[in-house]
Amino acid sequence: MIKGSQSIQFEHAPYVVSSGSIVGKKEADGPLGALFDHMDEDDLFGENTWEAAESKMQKKACIIALQKAGIGPEKVRYLYGGDLLRQGIATSMGVEELQIPMFGLYGACSTSGEALALASMSVAAGYGEYMLAVTSSHFGSAEKEFRFPLGYANQRPLSSQWTVTGSGAFLVGTEKSHVRITGITVGKIVDYGLKDSQNMGACMAPAACDTILQNLKDFERKESDYDRIFTGDLGYVGQSILFDLMRRNGKDIKPNHVDCGMIIFDQQTQDTNAGGSGCGCAAVTLSSYILPKLTTGEWKRVLFVPTGALMSTVSYNEGESVPGIAHGIVLEHC
Amino acid sequence: MIKGSQSIQFEHAPYVVSSGSIVGKKEADGPLGALFDHMDEDDLFGENTWEAAESKMQKKACIIALQKAGIGPEKVRYLYGGDLLRQGIATSMGVEELQIPMFGLYGACSTSGEALALASMSVAAGYGEYMLAVTSSHFGSAEKEFRFPLGYANQRPLSSQWTVTGSGAFLVGTEKSHVRITGITVGKIVDYGLKDSQNMGACMAPAACDTILQNLKDFERKESDYDRIFTGDLGYVGQSILFDLMRRNGKDIKPNHVDCGMIIFDQQTQDTNAGGSGCGCAAVTLSSYILPKLTTGEWKRVLFVPTGALMSTVSYNEGESVPGIAHGIVLEHC
Repeated sequence: MIKGSQSIQFEHAPYVVSSGSIVGKKEADGPLGALFDHMDEDDLFGENTWEAAESKMQKKACIIALQKAGIGPEKVRYLYGGDLLRQGIATSMGVEELQIPMFGLYGACSTSGEALALASMSVAAGYGEYMLAVTSSHFGSAEKEFRFPLGYANQRPLSSQWTVTGSGAFLVGTEKSHVRITGITVGKIVDYGLKDSQNMGACMAPAACDTILQNLKDFERKESDYDRIFTGDLGYVGQSILFDLMRRNGKDIKPNHVDCGMIIFDQQTQDTNAGGSGCGCAAVTLSSYILPKLTTGEWKRVLFVPTGALMSTVSYNEGESVPGIAHGIVLEHC
Repeated sequence: MIKGSQSIQFEHAPYVVSSGSIVGKKEADGPLGALFDHMDEDDLFGENTWEAAESKMQKKACIIALQKAGIGPEKVRYLYGGDLLRQGIATSMGVEELQIPMFGLYGACSTSGEALALASMSVAAGYGEYMLAVTSSHFGSAEKEFRFPLGYANQRPLSSQWTVTGSGAFLVGTEKSHVRITGITVGKIVDYGLKDSQNMGACMAPAACDTILQNLKDFERKESDYDRIFTGDLGYVGQSILFDLMRRNGKDIKPNHVDCGMIIFDQQTQDTNAGGSGCGCAAVTLSSYILPKLTTGEWKRVLFVPTGALMSTVSYNEGESVPGIAHGIVLEHC
């Protein structure tokens, strides 16, 4: 069951029973727009604040996933959830009504990987029939949390990324579907000493490289054993650094690498600089774009690697570097 | 293995192999002062900021626990850690150097329960020989995060609590010791609609009550089946509410209830108002005071219930209520 130094290969691999995705207007206007389950015209989802809107998204994403599986929240043993806001309030206020026993998580934009890892570990261990994994991010609440309130209309460097307004929820369980989580690689914190919080792609690329290399080593696979290797949200800057780092380690993932942050927006027309980001980015891409292709069997095996930049306004204002973390989830068609 | 609706009883109950506790000056001057592994005279632990000091405590607490067990960090499969700061930076910057694959958590002051639950679930499932669970809080960083910087010298209402400067780390594993984690009860978010962020005891008491009742139900036990029931940091206000709520449900935990927040400081001489709090509070009390009594067999079975108030400056300034969450850990002498 234990594989190498950081991975687990599940003897009884749990299934991704169903999932739900919900996004804002800009995401709905992007290249994946038609694939999401639900969108909102003004990004407020009927609420008065960006934070309440983000909570509403989390709740809705969970409910969509539950409805697709035809089960109620009382059937879900534990919920694993997180977001980018201080003290994870989008999650606390969002999932409260579902009344599922819950574990609050923080892994920056890697949180969807963290939640899927823990949900699948719990199902595989026999701790319950169903677990929910949910994450979200919101452009309005994230700009306020990490940079400036939207009203400031601050300028954004070319290396900056656009936080995705969206939430993805995944019901992981023993109930059969056509996608299984067959293994995980839990990430370590990787710190190259970078201090530019507006260049998260560069901060996260070393962690993505570390986790992908570790995954290949632990599972004794080569790059081409995966139909696709998805990173969470490295963006254009981070992707090119990742390719360089992989090459230095004798690996070439160029042919089968896709970054969720690069496909969720159209960089040319949507003014998103280096690409999308946020813990909703990888989550809604997995739900709307990756899982359907695994379900049909178009892809047989995918490595999903959400990446996170570990920082806060306090840490970077105090001169700390911005380390990264990335968790690997192995998804297989069955 | 599954017990009732929220609990797990472990077939192969993991052991608390060792633990480490580290505190600041005020905690060292308190009633439990002589029991902690390490203290620092100026609460800075050789660093320049409260945040860096908190990170240092986390690292030191982990190293103390590892040293007591005589193992290196490379033997630890996964680390589960969290703190109170935005984006959990005390943990990210604190455990980074240990280079253990890690899961970042947020459960407010309940985080030590959340970390111990996940660490024990992972060991019991066979995912590794050793897991680390670590949490911290720091008076200086927490006041800045949630209320005012210390220099403001703001007045504190009588219901307010004093955040403990401290970190507790727990090595959970298959290696035998005299204390086992035999079961867990994962908490739900409980919201009575209270909005006073300066009265966290009242906000958390309903969650403590809910988790204790659920634990007794799921494990088919009565109050007296536990030598002690410890809550994390309800303080004086929260404890009296908890007693009332339990009585309404036909339970009386008065004879064997202890609150970590009420024993860590001397309320009369240390000016701590309703008691101690913070995710270091329950953690250092467990490490220094509870575990030794379980090790000697003075207590045979203890229910440890850290409690958290789910809020941020943003959530309460936007008028949200302060819901609570509490996780139950069953510890037994063996």
